[in-house]
Amino acid sequence: MTITPNVNIHAEGSCQIDVGRTRILCTASVSDRLPLFRRRTGLGWVTAEYAMLPRATQDRNRRDGRGGTLSGRTAEIQRLVGRALRTCVDFATLGEYQITVDCDVLQADGGTRCAAICGGWVALAMAARHMNGIGLVRRNPIIDQVAAVSCGIAGNDTLLDMDYEEDSNTDVDANFVMTAAGQIIEIQCSAEGVAFAKDQFDGMFSLARKGIEQLLESQQAALAMPSEHPAE
Amino acid sequence: MTITPNVNIHAEGSCQIDVGRTRILCTASVSDRLPLFRRRTGLGWVTAEYAMLPRATQDRNRRDGRGGTLSGRTAEIQRLVGRALRTCVDFATLGEYQITVDCDVLQADGGTRCAAICGGWVALAMAARHMNGIGLVRRNPIIDQVAAVSCGIAGNDTLLDMDYEEDSNTDVDANFVMTAAGQIIEIQCSAEGVAFAKDQFDGMFSLARKGIEQLLESQQAALAMPSEHPAE
Amino acid sequence: MTITPNVNIHAEGSCQIDVGRTRILCTASVSDRLPLFRRRTGLGWVTAEYAMLPRATQDRNRRDGRGGTLSGRTAEIQRLVGRALRTCVDFATLGEYQITVDCDVLQADGGTRCAAICGGWVALAMAARHMNGIGLVRRNPIIDQVAAVSCGIAGNDTLLDMDYEEDSNTDVDANFVMTAAGQIIEIQCSAEGVAFAKDQFDGMFSLARKGIEQLLESQQAALAMPSEHPAE
Amino acid sequence: MTITPNVNIHAEGSCQIDVGRTRILCTASVSDRLPLFRRRTGLGWVTAEYAMLPRATQDRNRRDGRGGTLSGRTAEIQRLVGRALRTCVDFATLGEYQITVDCDVLQADGGTRCAAICGGWVALAMAARHMNGIGLVRRNPIIDQVAAVSCGIAGNDTLLDMDYEEDSNTDVDANFVMTAAGQIIEIQCSAEGVAFAKDQFDGMFSLARKGIEQLLESQQAALAMPSEHPAE
Amino acid sequence: MTITPNVNIHAEGSCQIDVGRTRILCTASVSDRLPLFRRRTGLGWVTAEYAMLPRATQDRNRRDGRGGTLSGRTAEIQRLVGRALRTCVDFATLGEYQITVDCDVLQADGGTRCAAICGGWVALAMAARHMNGIGLVRRNPIIDQVAAVSCGIAGNDTLLDMDYEEDSNTDVDANFVMTAAGQIIEIQCSAEGVAFAKDQFDGMFSLARKGIEQLLESQQAALAMPSEHPAE
Amino acid sequence: MTITPNVNIHAEGSCQIDVGRTRILCTASVSDRLPLFRRRTGLGWVTAEYAMLPRATQDRNRRDGRGGTLSGRTAEIQRLVGRALRTCVDFATLGEYQITVDCDVLQADGGTRCAAICGGWVALAMAARHMNGIGLVRRNPIIDQVAAVSCGIAGNDTLLDMDYEEDSNTDVDANFVMTAAGQIIEIQCSAEGVAFAKDQFDGMFSLARKGIEQLLESQQAALAMPSEHPAE
Repeated sequence: MTITPNVNIHAEGSCQIDVGRTRILCTASVSDRLPLFRRRTGLGWVTAEYAMLPRATQDRNRRDGRGGTLSGRTAEIQRLVGRALRTCVDFATLGEYQITVDCDVLQADGGTRCAAICGGWVALAMAARHMNGIGLVRRNPIIDQVAAVSCGIAGNDTLLDMDYEEDSNTDVDANFVMTAAGQIIEIQCSAEGVAFAKDQFDGMFSLARKGIEQLLESQQAALAMPSEHPAE
Repeated sequence: MTITPNVNIHAEGSCQIDVGRTRILCTASVSDRLPLFRRRTGLGWVTAEYAMLPRATQDRNRRDGRGGTLSGRTAEIQRLVGRALRTCVDFATLGEYQITVDCDVLQADGGTRCAAICGGWVALAMAARHMNGIGLVRRNPIIDQVAAVSCGIAGNDTLLDMDYEEDSNTDVDANFVMTAAGQIIEIQCSAEGVAFAKDQFDGMFSLARKGIEQLLESQQAALAMPSEHPAE
Repeated sequence: MTITPNVNIHAEGSCQIDVGRTRILCTASVSDRLPLFRRRTGLGWVTAEYAMLPRATQDRNRRDGRGGTLSGRTAEIQRLVGRALRTCVDFATLGEYQITVDCDVLQADGGTRCAAICGGWVALAMAARHMNGIGLVRRNPIIDQVAAVSCGIAGNDTLLDMDYEEDSNTDVDANFVMTAAGQIIEIQCSAEGVAFAKDQFDGMFSLARKGIEQLLESQQAALAMPSEHPAE
Repeated sequence: MTITPNVNIHAEGSCQIDVGRTRILCTASVSDRLPLFRRRTGLGWVTAEYAMLPRATQDRNRRDGRGGTLSGRTAEIQRLVGRALRTCVDFATLGEYQITVDCDVLQADGGTRCAAICGGWVALAMAARHMNGIGLVRRNPIIDQVAAVSCGIAGNDTLLDMDYEEDSNTDVDANFVMTAAGQIIEIQCSAEGVAFAKDQFDGMFSLARKGIEQLLESQQAALAMPSEHPAE
Repeated sequence: MTITPNVNIHAEGSCQIDVGRTRILCTASVSDRLPLFRRRTGLGWVTAEYAMLPRATQDRNRRDGRGGTLSGRTAEIQRLVGRALRTCVDFATLGEYQITVDCDVLQADGGTRCAAICGGWVALAMAARHMNGIGLVRRNPIIDQVAAVSCGIAGNDTLLDMDYEEDSNTDVDANFVMTAAGQIIEIQCSAEGVAFAKDQFDGMFSLARKGIEQLLESQQAALAMPSEHPAE
Repeated sequence: MTITPNVNIHAEGSCQIDVGRTRILCTASVSDRLPLFRRRTGLGWVTAEYAMLPRATQDRNRRDGRGGTLSGRTAEIQRLVGRALRTCVDFATLGEYQITVDCDVLQADGGTRCAAICGGWVALAMAARHMNGIGLVRRNPIIDQVAAVSCGIAGNDTLLDMDYEEDSNTDVDANFVMTAAGQIIEIQCSAEGVAFAKDQFDGMFSLARKGIEQLLESQQAALAMPSEHPAE
């Protein structure tokens, strides 16, 4: 896994994340336009959008949303990414700003929702640091770190970070989102045809925890690189 | 919880499910029009749609989908219901038919996605039995039974089947979908602001398992009632 | 015909109306959000929405509005319901409130537009009485009572309240909306293939008038039932 | 009222109808593409579309349909025009062809739906005659003639063919569609605020009948003009 | 070419332009509702909309925009018309008003975008003069005159103002928008299959310049006709 | 300017083009699904789609097309790119295949439509060569090379390849698309407020021709790099 920060000259925070052959461009954009339900509350908001370029996949797909409807899959993923990232932010410290994290999949080979959370957090943390650096907020509103990893069960094997081909052959497909302290933010776990037992779930959980520790380190390494944002 | 079967004269299977003050009308409709990817495969399909009446909720909501976009929440729930129900069906036995399960929330007070799965399974099982009764399929294509229950953590308490007000005050919100044999079909578990530990997850899991056993019995009781479908 | 009031815990007024095998859930929702053309006029507004559940009909229909377009039939019916209900309301007394009457057809077997007007009026009257009860308006803004009935001509027979099968065989299809005093609010009358004479129209009118008298009584009976709305 | 035939070089039938200051361009287009429900039935179909140019009205309106939704009013009117015109056609004689009648309001000053029916019938009859002339059908499929007129009640007066200003001041607004023999095709009659009595309805009916006789003559005069369609 | 002014009783400026067998109705509508980016700037705006009636063309077309999507061709043409007309207006003199120029093609036979610019300018100039006449602006905000002409290359010939059939056989298709002083506003020039040389371009340019001079005269003649607008 | 080929593992042809700080990802996708008008003609088709990532620009933009409408600007650009690329292909040699060229702007700083044509041609040529390599076509269907460059006039200066800031200050904005032999494919040239003279146009044309020669060389250099496509 590689996280390359500062890949966009306009965004307040940005990175490209490569996990296997999956590649996602993540940007975090700061705006003072809040959604209606947050206006005049003193609190900020974080939202996420997720999209795939048409040829991110083996066969070309129609651009999602052209024609008016967002696929259920896209809607579900961007809601997950938004929820995961919001747990890391102190909205009172953020104040009346919205940060929009865009995760655009340039190339997909399995695990895009987890990679979007990992890269999205880096972009978000960079944007938050930048806001602090230029004085928009008094202190950094980031209060936790999150990463996400996918697991699966194929026959008797428990697998981590499956690529597209492995993923297609699993009986169970799971995503774990956790914090730096190993606490759980979100679990999504779904049998593909064959139900599974609690023991098997616990096996995936242990494996996921180890995988997440490595991801947390990569995120910190990316954040530690010198920032080139022109405004700082 | 109450499940009232045969509430619609047109549908091949139907029931009304009341869980607390949540009330959902579930119908299962049989059709020989398959989605494109299933045509000429010899296999059938099950799909679900979920919708709320505008005043199912405390404040009136806009009808979802009018204006062209389905909310992310609706898309996510109907995908979950469809996945859960598909695990119970042998598609080769079903043959080239599609069963569409519609779950329309007449009144909402928490837990609608779990109630939709429980009621949806009853409607689906009735439609499958009806197809068998009139000879559309050689034997009943239902191969398993599923039920779903919601759990939550509020402070130190683990709660089952929360109504809307309890749900609003939980720190963790989880949905468990399981089979008659206690195997897992799907877990969705999400922290609202505060992350949680594996122990707490295990506590919810045990509670959910007990809740699901009662639901499975109610489903069987509803199915055992005399069927009034005109076609049988 | 049966009208069951108080079928929804959230709505300011609600009833379920069963006419033959047609069943409609009607709710009336009070809001202080007025349409643009009524803002700052001192006058209120009443609007109606009409929808069919997908399996309300013999064959399953696509959910109307998903995909962005409302069918012409739906648009026409909800405009009719709204117009009919607005004639019963003194908008100056109502003040700057909007009441939205939702008519959701749970099961259809002919005559849904007339049943929607009859049930919609009961829900509207309950909501208006409730507003008066809790002091939102100084007196009840309902100034008239309306009911609606469908008639048809099949060969030499004039029929009242046709079910779906009778309706499919009529040469003329008519809807009459009238007040408690027997005055006309709206007439819609349409030949299906064969034109008809003024005498035949007059025959339908007489029949309709008798049918409407019974409907007015059922509406009053439903309104006289003890109200269970929690806010009163 | 003036009807000018042959105002479009492409359409199989066309006319411009001027009623007062209302001006509508009507074209009838022949196609061998039938709607799904008519294919391989040996029967044809007639459908109508109605639209207003943005500045047909006193204030400029948004183009109807841009943005995806057809207004309820437009949907209602084009359904009415289609129904009225279909009563005049023998679909077995028409064979597997569809005639689409487009009624585009260039300038509106009241009564557009009635003018659209009157002009639409002329365009339809021209297209049918043209089909017969070039041998697409063995004989003319037009079996009746229809015209439509609007009436209103303002205080104690019954009015015919109101312009926009008169129309705005009526208490009752009615449209009558009748055949050459004086039979009724459709009645739409609606109180604006104040209900009305059967006597008043009968007064409007008599007035409408007289108005329609004049319209039928104008339609025949337009049809009798020499046709300039290049294909004949 | 003929330009007939004052063809609409409601619009502040209007004309019908006939170029060959192409016929377009142009109206200019004045409004004090500005687009967001112009509000409170002291500056006005001019925008254009372009549409074809369904049977403006040899075969009937679907109404553009019904169903939610504007075709690329329509979007491109109305942007061009808007840009061309905006170059003629002093927005500070216009003040906070928007003029919307609607160009509706009643009948098409080639060259509609150029005809829309020519007729649109006349409607715009009439509306601007009208605003001045009734005192909405202190002086006429029109500061220049524009006309547009189409050219093409077919084999060795350079053609002006091609009709639809000629246009279908050209190798190069060009549109020139110019001012009264012969300066260039816009050039669109596109090879259909075979690329072309700079010399050929220069030939088209000379021809276009001559064509535009005649158009400018016709526009002035139309503007010089007595205005019948009721408000003056 | 840099063109990096082979940036996507799935696409039959792909490159990333960097012009100044503008960065576009271009992929070419081969499919045997032709648009309706090309089916069973023996001829292929080339189409293009263009989109900007939301934070490609200085301020974040809404995703184009979500909500159902494509902006006019996007529609116009992707039509231009498609037209330009189609002039380079012999459709009889291509046979019944469609190549879709997607141009996704990762970062924008002026000149995106010209960069999309330059990069799009490289992706297209790679896909065509790949089709030839694996035997889908008997010989390479690419028959010409195109490049595009933007020019502008700012005061007395004629500028090539303006970045966003320069572009905002020009009086005239032009795009030239030319072939390897210096022939013209397309000219788009538009005054922003002030009209311009033919001499000035000729100055831009000469400058553009020089710029295009360099672009043609860069395209050839990218094509000459070793191809890494797995299928070859």
